[in-house]
Amino acid sequence: MKRGEIIAVGSELLIGGRLDTNSLFLSERLGALGIEVRFKSIVGDSEDDIVAVLTTAARRVDIVILTGGLGPTSDDRTRQAVARAVGRPLRRRAEAFAGMSARLAAWGRTPTVAQLKQTLIPSGADVLTNPVGSAPGFSLQWNGSFIAVLPGVPREAEAMFEAAVVPHLVGNGTRNDTRIERRLLHTLGLFESDLDRQLSDLMKTHRSIQLGLLASPLGVTISLMTSVTPTRTALLDGLVQAVKRRLHRHVYAEGSETMEEVVGRELAKRGMTLALAESCTGGLIGHRLTQVPGSSGYFDRGVITYSNQAKHEVLGVPLALLRRYGAVSSHVAAAMAKGVRLKSCTDIGLSVTGIAGPGGGTAGKPVGLVYIGLDAKTPGLSSRQPLTEEFRFHGDRHTIKMRSSQAALNMVRLWLADMAIHPRP
Amino acid sequence: MKRGEIIAVGSELLIGGRLDTNSLFLSERLGALGIEVRFKSIVGDSEDDIVAVLTTAARRVDIVILTGGLGPTSDDRTRQAVARAVGRPLRRRAEAFAGMSARLAAWGRTPTVAQLKQTLIPSGADVLTNPVGSAPGFSLQWNGSFIAVLPGVPREAEAMFEAAVVPHLVGNGTRNDTRIERRLLHTLGLFESDLDRQLSDLMKTHRSIQLGLLASPLGVTISLMTSVTPTRTALLDGLVQAVKRRLHRHVYAEGSETMEEVVGRELAKRGMTLALAESCTGGLIGHRLTQVPGSSGYFDRGVITYSNQAKHEVLGVPLALLRRYGAVSSHVAAAMAKGVRLKSCTDIGLSVTGIAGPGGGTAGKPVGLVYIGLDAKTPGLSSRQPLTEEFRFHGDRHTIKMRSSQAALNMVRLWLADMAIHPRP
Repeated sequence: MKRGEIIAVGSELLIGGRLDTNSLFLSERLGALGIEVRFKSIVGDSEDDIVAVLTTAARRVDIVILTGGLGPTSDDRTRQAVARAVGRPLRRRAEAFAGMSARLAAWGRTPTVAQLKQTLIPSGADVLTNPVGSAPGFSLQWNGSFIAVLPGVPREAEAMFEAAVVPHLVGNGTRNDTRIERRLLHTLGLFESDLDRQLSDLMKTHRSIQLGLLASPLGVTISLMTSVTPTRTALLDGLVQAVKRRLHRHVYAEGSETMEEVVGRELAKRGMTLALAESCTGGLIGHRLTQVPGSSGYFDRGVITYSNQAKHEVLGVPLALLRRYGAVSSHVAAAMAKGVRLKSCTDIGLSVTGIAGPGGGTAGKPVGLVYIGLDAKTPGLSSRQPLTEEFRFHGDRHTIKMRSSQAALNMVRLWLADMAIHPRP
Repeated sequence: MKRGEIIAVGSELLIGGRLDTNSLFLSERLGALGIEVRFKSIVGDSEDDIVAVLTTAARRVDIVILTGGLGPTSDDRTRQAVARAVGRPLRRRAEAFAGMSARLAAWGRTPTVAQLKQTLIPSGADVLTNPVGSAPGFSLQWNGSFIAVLPGVPREAEAMFEAAVVPHLVGNGTRNDTRIERRLLHTLGLFESDLDRQLSDLMKTHRSIQLGLLASPLGVTISLMTSVTPTRTALLDGLVQAVKRRLHRHVYAEGSETMEEVVGRELAKRGMTLALAESCTGGLIGHRLTQVPGSSGYFDRGVITYSNQAKHEVLGVPLALLRRYGAVSSHVAAAMAKGVRLKSCTDIGLSVTGIAGPGGGTAGKPVGLVYIGLDAKTPGLSSRQPLTEEFRFHGDRHTIKMRSSQAALNMVRLWLADMAIHPRP
């Protein structure tokens, strides 16, 4: 199994806080090609620092993919740094200029003086044409390592990787019989330590498979990874099935699937529709449901009733109920779910009311107290309607909103699963 | 200026796709303490790889902050790797056990066998008590570098850094006369290349200040960074003012402030309230507004009217209008904004209708076509009401939703700014 490293260049990246889509894509694709990404490095726009990181990477891995710092602006130093690290001068290259001019011409433009800088390529390197942008990339061999240098813009990095890097990696026999396979199982309702304990005997009988656990406000994701040969795939598949059987209803999705996709798929399968009444989640559940293409087929409408007045006017929650139990109560969650379902004539009404904090908590009703309500046209297993559930979440405002939205969608998922097992006429 | 490196441990982090909150916080805090973060490394749970990364880091920087891999589960290898890298054996430490027991006791629990593993600390290292969780950290000096090892959970890493690492860094004279200062200006409506051109003369007269540009669906963020002494701070402040004057209304926020915070602050200042009618954004604007603590003071309610039926029933959009112009039209955006304002009795009604894709586009109304409407009780500069604006966004479904939500909030911001300059009775 060959070893890979991804290097992202850009001073802005050092301050973090950004979703790193390049490395997500690159490590998945490299894994599928039989290259295990072992390291990822982030470095600023300092030429010296880029040289240091590239030199270390080329020493410890076989394949280095570097992204970013190829732009026309004054802070882009990757080109110079790579040339210095590998000891080859930069030369203006005709192929690079031709590719850039053709791309710009299609947009009705010609290269600017600043953009001409982008046609400087280390001598002896292969020019990589940019299929969707104007900045060319390049690749070269150095001290036994293959180095590819791609733009930082995700769409461009992805297109160039597929068009120009993959053929090289495959052509040079990097693809071999073993490759990395990874399975992800997303769970809700169990702690990392619970999972570690519940799975320990299974992992002991599957020594070649590596277990990883990753907790987030959306639950704990189980990663099962191994380098596979035809026989080992069967082993991985068997373990996945065993884990799913053991954790049962706690596994809500697999692979890249999300809770909102699972809920959407199950609603669509049954031809059922949903309406939302959100309070403390403020629109997050609607946002998540509508991230899924085709969600207009089952998601009719949502209301965000932040004020008591809105809960009364829009959903018909009795003012007496709001006064007696408070907006954050199972009674109000039930009335909201029923109200939104009746107003919208959907099959299911789902509601959330809670205290996201940091203010608004009391001793009796602390920050993190959340009630979820579900009301359905066709009652489920229980004739008790609407269903309500109480949660006490920890964390900051964003975390409590995320956990609440996840718990609410999960309540729909479980309700639909029970319907499938015990259908009602 | 001392040099720093942040190392994040965890195989899950190598597949990317996660928001890295630890490094965001750590680089800001380290910068304020006079330590410039020059490198960031991500490494899996392999002991050999952690040893390699730590050894490289200790060679090239003065301060290494390592997070993650301190948990009780079998894939947590940081403790062993650090001990091996620095050549000191792991020892069960009484202070580590005491801190853990006290924390667990507060939660009514006692340490499990797996958790006891977490009290193993390299000999001679200082134990760092975890102020909010049970896992202890540690710090040590090695070959002239200071190394701190913190848990991966952001809340715990942050609390431990403040409580135990900062005093050490300050106490050991790390803080000196120069420190890194960075200013961020968030812009909307200009491309990176526009900004680079518009700012080039200013940057030429401020050679000691480093410019960085970072594009995202929320706009382009300008980063201005320099190592400051008392005189250089004035220089940075002067440049920030010059850039703001030049870019004028395009700068919507500074530093860590977000668009939703700016809009919320301006609404609160005027005692005005807002109601939302969202279609293609599906709740995202409501979610963003309610991320801000205290948003219940100005955000009354929102409706997510995904179906035409809901637009008609909930907002009173005439069916004839929907039939004649289609749901994605300036006429319907206007009617939605007016409808939600009247129904909710708020000062401002804000609406979005568009095609987020990937399906649903036609030649005349392509994916990315979005209309935003704003209707106010007190008309603004223009007596034309409601205001509407047409946008044509590029990108995938998520990007189009993000850009739409940003443009809609920006429309409120600009409307409020105009009101401030030309108040109406």
